[in-house]
Amino acid sequence: MRALAESIAQEPGLVWKIWTESAAEHRAGGVYLFESRAAAEAYHRMHAERLGRVGVTGIEVTYRAVNAPQSRITRGPLP
Amino acid sequence: MRALAESIAQEPGLVWKIWTESAAEHRAGGVYLFESRAAAEAYHRMHAERLGRVGVTGIEVTYRAVNAPQSRITRGPLP
Repeated sequence: MRALAESIAQEPGLVWKIWTESAAEHRAGGVYLFESRAAAEAYHRMHAERLGRVGVTGIEVTYRAVNAPQSRITRGPLP
Repeated sequence: MRALAESIAQEPGLVWKIWTESAAEHRAGGVYLFESRAAAEAYHRMHAERLGRVGVTGIEVTYRAVNAPQSRITRGPLP
């Protein structure tokens, strides 16, 4: 898992990833901040393919834009 | 909106909030980091009530635990 995280840390356009877990739902996931929507979509394609090769399917992804001015007031961790 | 953000910034147990928007879905939301699950649930109750008073209903919320060691490798913004 550490090696996977070190690999993800090098992905183009990734600012940060928080790794999340939901024991109740038996799901693992993440919250990612990317420099652009295009970088996020490229990462998703790569990551889904990588997980598919080890038998992990059914990945769900949603994309959101960030309201930076409002986020800064609430200490949102943006670059 | 600025006043709302300044109020939210003072909420007990809130580490940060990123304000999110999805134009395609006509939805607004946020990603929050709290010091504890209890603080997150208390915030949700207060926030849902506040939004309900101005006619905003149908709030969706999900909770996730954070894998801190993995997140730190990918620059996850944890305290």
